[in-house]
Amino acid sequence: MFAPVFLDHNATTPLSEAVWQGMLPWLRDRFGNASSRHEYGRAARTAVEEARRQVAAAVGAVPGEVVFTSGGSESNNLLIKGFCDVRAPGALAIGSTEHPCVYKPAEQMVSAGWQIRRIPVDSLGLIDLARYAEIVLEKPALVSVMMANNETGVVQDVAALAAAARTAGAVFHTDAAQVLGRMPLDFRALNGAGVMAMTLSAHKAGGPKGAGALILDKRLELVPLIAGGGQERGLRSGTENVAAIVGFGLACELASTQLRDAPAAMLAMREQLEIGLHALGASIFGQAALRLPNTVYFALPDIDGETLVGKLDRAGFAVASGAACSSANPEPSHVLAAMGVPDEFARAAVRVSLGSGNQPRQVEEFLKVLKEIVQQLKQLTAVAI
Amino acid sequence: MFAPVFLDHNATTPLSEAVWQGMLPWLRDRFGNASSRHEYGRAARTAVEEARRQVAAAVGAVPGEVVFTSGGSESNNLLIKGFCDVRAPGALAIGSTEHPCVYKPAEQMVSAGWQIRRIPVDSLGLIDLARYAEIVLEKPALVSVMMANNETGVVQDVAALAAAARTAGAVFHTDAAQVLGRMPLDFRALNGAGVMAMTLSAHKAGGPKGAGALILDKRLELVPLIAGGGQERGLRSGTENVAAIVGFGLACELASTQLRDAPAAMLAMREQLEIGLHALGASIFGQAALRLPNTVYFALPDIDGETLVGKLDRAGFAVASGAACSSANPEPSHVLAAMGVPDEFARAAVRVSLGSGNQPRQVEEFLKVLKEIVQQLKQLTAVAI
Repeated sequence: MFAPVFLDHNATTPLSEAVWQGMLPWLRDRFGNASSRHEYGRAARTAVEEARRQVAAAVGAVPGEVVFTSGGSESNNLLIKGFCDVRAPGALAIGSTEHPCVYKPAEQMVSAGWQIRRIPVDSLGLIDLARYAEIVLEKPALVSVMMANNETGVVQDVAALAAAARTAGAVFHTDAAQVLGRMPLDFRALNGAGVMAMTLSAHKAGGPKGAGALILDKRLELVPLIAGGGQERGLRSGTENVAAIVGFGLACELASTQLRDAPAAMLAMREQLEIGLHALGASIFGQAALRLPNTVYFALPDIDGETLVGKLDRAGFAVASGAACSSANPEPSHVLAAMGVPDEFARAAVRVSLGSGNQPRQVEEFLKVLKEIVQQLKQLTAVAI
Repeated sequence: MFAPVFLDHNATTPLSEAVWQGMLPWLRDRFGNASSRHEYGRAARTAVEEARRQVAAAVGAVPGEVVFTSGGSESNNLLIKGFCDVRAPGALAIGSTEHPCVYKPAEQMVSAGWQIRRIPVDSLGLIDLARYAEIVLEKPALVSVMMANNETGVVQDVAALAAAARTAGAVFHTDAAQVLGRMPLDFRALNGAGVMAMTLSAHKAGGPKGAGALILDKRLELVPLIAGGGQERGLRSGTENVAAIVGFGLACELASTQLRDAPAAMLAMREQLEIGLHALGASIFGQAALRLPNTVYFALPDIDGETLVGKLDRAGFAVASGAACSSANPEPSHVLAAMGVPDEFARAAVRVSLGSGNQPRQVEEFLKVLKEIVQQLKQLTAVAI
């Protein structure tokens, strides 16, 4: 396979070597069902519980707060639907730049009598605090605001938002799928501020696809999304995906170690990238906000993002024109729309998201190739006019 | 690791070598998100669609009818909740020996106004046809009856049941998780008889944990259980677990090939096993019914099933005392209760479920060891009295 330089780590990440090695036995000889009571089953159960400790340790939670799911989308659906299904209908306050796997399950609850309040963001993508204060005073039952946006990388002050929600009597949830391994996560501290639940995804952090978690304050009652055999304290039934869970645990352990120095290296590459992009006349969305160290979301005037992504792909660089999970949808980004970016300019958006395997040399090559492509495209436009 | 002879294939199965080899690249270099539009993403998308064709071909469906999920439990929850959530409440007719991942989501719908009719079975575990006819005349909206039971292996005449349901205007679903690779599956024929949806699980058929499918007649409207990015035609959002889906496709392809001669070898081992068990005084549940060729569910009078499973495990044989997925629950089997088996006798139940890797020699050794254990336990009982 032709292997372009991978600069799309907010869509997914390669498995770290240590994660892969650790998963191997669970895909081969140690194939037991963790609910079985024989040797194969007990070995699988022990591995799942060890992974639960690793995940908990990496995010400042206790193992009993970790509910394993098939991934971030399931975790978000479990939290939102599981919350609504045991309560009388009220309002759900949802950030206007949330991933579809938060706002779509919320929209599904409307038919059950729930109302949705969209929390506006400013031009940087940060929650509008004045509007937020007004919305929480309306006493929504649940507030869900993501910790870092998958497109822009913009990081919200979740602790402050949660504290305001708690004061108003609302339960607060945050989708931290993009944060794991990129910035420190401390559920204990967040929980102290009022965060009752937090979504994680393994494959965004060097772990495998097929595993995620909802970190859940045990005082928060939820109805299971997938009911059945009663796994995960009855909150998520179905045979545990042991190998994926083991990989998730190892990825979390690795992420904690890497957080000691990787973000600085990542930030240096981001800086290098942004200097180069500015020289080409690019605008960077949310640039003045606190952002994930690995994410740059930019637009070059009069250059279509889809076209640019296609050309970069053929030139050996894998980047995204929007959130990968929803890119079946050709509409311009709802995140940029919420930030007040006109559709025409939003269509120029391209996302570069770095990973621990990337090198400054690759960023340099990327900028060089981008410059050539931009020149070509501008010449074509000039000819067309 | 101490590796007992694995005789618990209804709980889970080892990955076939060909499945493992086929999954490998998707866990390593080809790690793309199938929604991404660059090379990594396109490769993943192609692999997912190839797996969809393999699954469809193995079960007599067309690719457009295959909705990938994280497994059988999710498929059953998607069907039941997804069906109820777009319809005015009515009745759900559920077989009384269904897996918890069918009857528990059905029970969850009671709070939304749905009623549950339990369809009784006879002493063999077969649906009571007279009672079934009465129940469908009451016009339930949905009927769900599993094709083969996970504990007994008893196979229902799903085509006939579906035809009766259709005549009464009910939608019919069947959980075929235990059937894949063990008996032929022909969704086209079943669909012609009235089956509108069918659940599959990869890890019960030589595929990996973390993948399953709902085979769905496209005329049947469902609300997604996991909403978000819109994957799987909007019916199941979340980043596709590409490696697991690829493994599922390969396992299906392999299952189709093995169905040519493996069942005969399996039946011969089952016969060998049952002759030996009868000689020890065992009763075999559902023996006179059509059963999966790999499953024997038996009880030895006055010998506790849990105790026997523990002793067999230490002696090198992995078997189950109940359905693995629900064995966190120490209650006697609801399947046997539905068949009219007294609790005391149900507590003696032990399940042996064979796989393609098992050999007649292993069955012989199993019977020899079982005989020794039974003699020991009887001596202990005699001493205690």
